[in-house]
Amino acid sequence: MSEDCLFCAIVTGDVPSAPVAETETTFAFMDIQPGSDGHLLVVPKRHSTDLRDIPSADLADVAIESQRIAKHVFDAWGAEGVNLLNSCGKDAWQSVFHFHMHVIPRYRDKDKDRLRLPFPPGIRGDSELIEELAVTMRSALEADG
Amino acid sequence: MSEDCLFCAIVTGDVPSAPVAETETTFAFMDIQPGSDGHLLVVPKRHSTDLRDIPSADLADVAIESQRIAKHVFDAWGAEGVNLLNSCGKDAWQSVFHFHMHVIPRYRDKDKDRLRLPFPPGIRGDSELIEELAVTMRSALEADG
Repeated sequence: MSEDCLFCAIVTGDVPSAPVAETETTFAFMDIQPGSDGHLLVVPKRHSTDLRDIPSADLADVAIESQRIAKHVFDAWGAEGVNLLNSCGKDAWQSVFHFHMHVIPRYRDKDKDRLRLPFPPGIRGDSELIEELAVTMRSALEADG
Repeated sequence: MSEDCLFCAIVTGDVPSAPVAETETTFAFMDIQPGSDGHLLVVPKRHSTDLRDIPSADLADVAIESQRIAKHVFDAWGAEGVNLLNSCGKDAWQSVFHFHMHVIPRYRDKDKDRLRLPFPPGIRGDSELIEELAVTMRSALEADG
């Protein structure tokens, strides 16, 4: 538990939420600024700041719990699709610094779904730049051993 | 391996890609329609259509491999943030029906970063609707036993 962390306080119940599910290591609750109807968050109970410091076991637990819930957005809410989204860093739209996975149901009915396309589709990238970036990433990963 | 699946063919090498990393169960390669410079995809080698049918072990492996790579977008490419995104269903922007996790580096330099905010921030949802949706999801999850 990290002091002054909103999501730690939600996990302990010190800050109220609309909870959805709980496992030994994860807690799921409704997002109060939903991008679509039913938008919810799955967090590890143990505090991590973001994707950089969350232990891989907690990350796996959050991913599997997000999947378990995501499968039910179709039957529970009539969604036609679902997105999982994690934001790491304020430049990636992270606003609460306790790791969280967004589970965002998607609907053809745009009254229920306020998400916009996150990137322009169908724009083919520069193949030389792509290859160059692949090379530097392979090197960075190899340096890990 | 699923016939006529683009990403199965990328995993086997029958369709060329700019590969980034490979584990026993996952394959990572550059997205050719990048939302930002360095946008890449991590897929399970074993075919799954989407988040609904991917075995949880494969999902965990993809999540952990995505994290391993995401940690390096900062040092390898100078990114200031990173998003993980999974799209399940065409109504959630899925276009290739082999499960894939987008790893999307984020930059303050908007020449490198063409992502738009996926949902309007700061709009507080209807608290009654949120509670109502939480109730139906808890019921759906409880029915799983």
